[in-house]
Amino acid sequence: MRVGVIGGGFVGTALVQLLTDPARHAALVDGATAPLELVGVAVRDKKRPHPGIDDALLTTDVDALIANDLDVLVEVAGGVEPCRTYLESALKLGVSVVTANKALMAESGTQLAQLANENGADLFYEAAVGGAIPILRALRSSLAGERINRVMGIVNGTTNYILTKMTSEGSDYESALAEAQSLGYAEADPSADVEGFDAAAKVQILSTLAFGTRLSGEEIDREGITGIRALDVEFARRSGYVIKLLGVAERVGDSGVSRRAHPAMVPIRHPLASVNGAMNAVFIEGVKSGPLMWLGQGAGGEPTATAVLGDVLDAARNRVSGRHDIPFSGDTSLHYVPGGALSSVFYLSVDVLDRPGVLAEVAGVFGRHDVSIRSMEQEGFGDEARLSFLTHHAISADVFATVEELAGSDSVESVGACIRVIDGSFE
Amino acid sequence: MRVGVIGGGFVGTALVQLLTDPARHAALVDGATAPLELVGVAVRDKKRPHPGIDDALLTTDVDALIANDLDVLVEVAGGVEPCRTYLESALKLGVSVVTANKALMAESGTQLAQLANENGADLFYEAAVGGAIPILRALRSSLAGERINRVMGIVNGTTNYILTKMTSEGSDYESALAEAQSLGYAEADPSADVEGFDAAAKVQILSTLAFGTRLSGEEIDREGITGIRALDVEFARRSGYVIKLLGVAERVGDSGVSRRAHPAMVPIRHPLASVNGAMNAVFIEGVKSGPLMWLGQGAGGEPTATAVLGDVLDAARNRVSGRHDIPFSGDTSLHYVPGGALSSVFYLSVDVLDRPGVLAEVAGVFGRHDVSIRSMEQEGFGDEARLSFLTHHAISADVFATVEELAGSDSVESVGACIRVIDGSFE
Repeated sequence: MRVGVIGGGFVGTALVQLLTDPARHAALVDGATAPLELVGVAVRDKKRPHPGIDDALLTTDVDALIANDLDVLVEVAGGVEPCRTYLESALKLGVSVVTANKALMAESGTQLAQLANENGADLFYEAAVGGAIPILRALRSSLAGERINRVMGIVNGTTNYILTKMTSEGSDYESALAEAQSLGYAEADPSADVEGFDAAAKVQILSTLAFGTRLSGEEIDREGITGIRALDVEFARRSGYVIKLLGVAERVGDSGVSRRAHPAMVPIRHPLASVNGAMNAVFIEGVKSGPLMWLGQGAGGEPTATAVLGDVLDAARNRVSGRHDIPFSGDTSLHYVPGGALSSVFYLSVDVLDRPGVLAEVAGVFGRHDVSIRSMEQEGFGDEARLSFLTHHAISADVFATVEELAGSDSVESVGACIRVIDGSFE
Repeated sequence: MRVGVIGGGFVGTALVQLLTDPARHAALVDGATAPLELVGVAVRDKKRPHPGIDDALLTTDVDALIANDLDVLVEVAGGVEPCRTYLESALKLGVSVVTANKALMAESGTQLAQLANENGADLFYEAAVGGAIPILRALRSSLAGERINRVMGIVNGTTNYILTKMTSEGSDYESALAEAQSLGYAEADPSADVEGFDAAAKVQILSTLAFGTRLSGEEIDREGITGIRALDVEFARRSGYVIKLLGVAERVGDSGVSRRAHPAMVPIRHPLASVNGAMNAVFIEGVKSGPLMWLGQGAGGEPTATAVLGDVLDAARNRVSGRHDIPFSGDTSLHYVPGGALSSVFYLSVDVLDRPGVLAEVAGVFGRHDVSIRSMEQEGFGDEARLSFLTHHAISADVFATVEELAGSDSVESVGACIRVIDGSFE
């Protein structure tokens, strides 16, 4: 089995080491049911040192690598283009493709899967969601006959690191972010992570596999964590919750699907609540299977490389027996339900002027929008006061309208967090 | 694809309903890449009502069912014989087999896998460990190229239910067991669960897949939970732990493997600590992947049937493309390391007569056996006192010898628990 690799970064290097480790050779041959030969590793610049990769394997000519009689092409370079073009070329030649590219799979996964199928090749992308966690294979295979109602994941390690710091040390958002940046867990421009774009891309991939949706990447509601303050985290703790950034895909009625990435208050006894630091986890609710959860390292060269390697072995095994996996036919009847249409319990934090009648005024705004208040806490600071609310179940759009009207009110200094509270019915 | 089922109990009935559910038909055809036809369901007594199974499918003639041109035989009846004979007949005919039978797989899994391979058939048994949790497929497939150092599982729902009750409500063992029995979570004779036999069978299956061991089912150290008292659970809580019955398989040095089922104190921040009630979970430490955990329903007709169904689809898909999975070649160089040879931190609870010099005497016993004490708590009750110890890391055999000498001492009323403390280095 001839294997080519695009990308000589952390994941690529770790993969090359796994593929060429003599101590693993027998297990790899067993797993692939054939010896694996690493044909070449395409990198941007051959002159830069690539410790751990034999110089003779390095190339900058991706097209020549693809055309070199490959069985499996691995792409661990990242970015939509030129990777999409490379993968299309390979698939058209009938070469099976393994990729860790979440942006590309979120944008073009369905089309690439179709191209793979037409050319008798496989397209596997386990490492695109949850790093080392073998969740995608479970969805394609173990759960193929199961009807899944909901997928909820902690699928972004950066935001989970930040929120865990805020929870365990009472840090504010800015200092937790700065620490994540200094440790290399967050980029200098952290917006892809903290604004929920990365989690949304993973929701796109997960919901395609879990439900067979054929919806566009825009049909995902997205909220980030930049507005979460230490006091919100502390309120959550006192109330028996932790705040997590969740990627959620769930069925709504017969043919609706809601897809969202947003912070949420998770009950402390829920298995997702104890997923800390840079760990990732995906929680699935199947009609017959009940709840299932997978947990593991969401990033890092070596953990990600193990997921890529599992895919390479799968693709090789398929090729040895002259077959390929058939992608699910999908369910084109499923439609996107905007998040505003859904009901949820919400936590809201509102800073108000501390003067008589303000609470009645604020409560009136809730009432006018049909949002019923379950509990309220008031804390005073001289001229101001902070009101923390938990609502009963309410239509999200009504809650958003409440926030908008409150933000425009003279008595309100600012509306802080508006965070969904996840149902505590687990166990 | 012609499918036959042996067993019309909870799992069998749930499986039949999944296989014949028109709403799932398309997903099943997709998953199997062929229509599935349910040929017959073998039951012990056709005259007993089997709601949910069409009478025309029922048969008592297992041999005729197997010989009826099957593609896949499902066995969800349980018990080693006559199931082993049935499965051998089917495999010899080249029929692929899916079984949920942990006792049979623990005892004869390696031989049956070899028989399947010789006859070009598959042998899948996902439901034999962890009910709905797709852990075995992950070990065979996603992690095929990974070197696994340790597998730790909460793989027995009965004991986890009992220990969770003792933890959350302070119940003693007897009343928690009685409640589990009244709810149907524990058998009238609970010894297979509470003495750790069931967990040991699952350790046998897990270690065969994770390490390729070819060791016998006797080479597993086994301790049950019957000696655990409310005070031990309370001590664990105060010290930041919860007590769980774990199944453990781990590498020791280059070619050793320790396999054990025993209660352990698990640090409260470890992901296994929050696995409560009848839930199961398997925690794996891979050299490159880092920690991975799977969580889900460990029992129940419908959850177990989803795992069986995943295997049926896999087996059908393989048959459509005329192939079968090759079992791992295994590593016959691995040898069993008895638990006594391993080092661990231990918790011990000792009831003593409350008289001068007793503590010095007890401490002397620890010292003579090279067991160093990390902390001690003393609680007095009139003429008696209870000493609770946490040791430093010590050779287990030395701790067992300490317990034995203490038990024979005139000053000691009784030695209560002697429980391993799991390393808290997770995260």
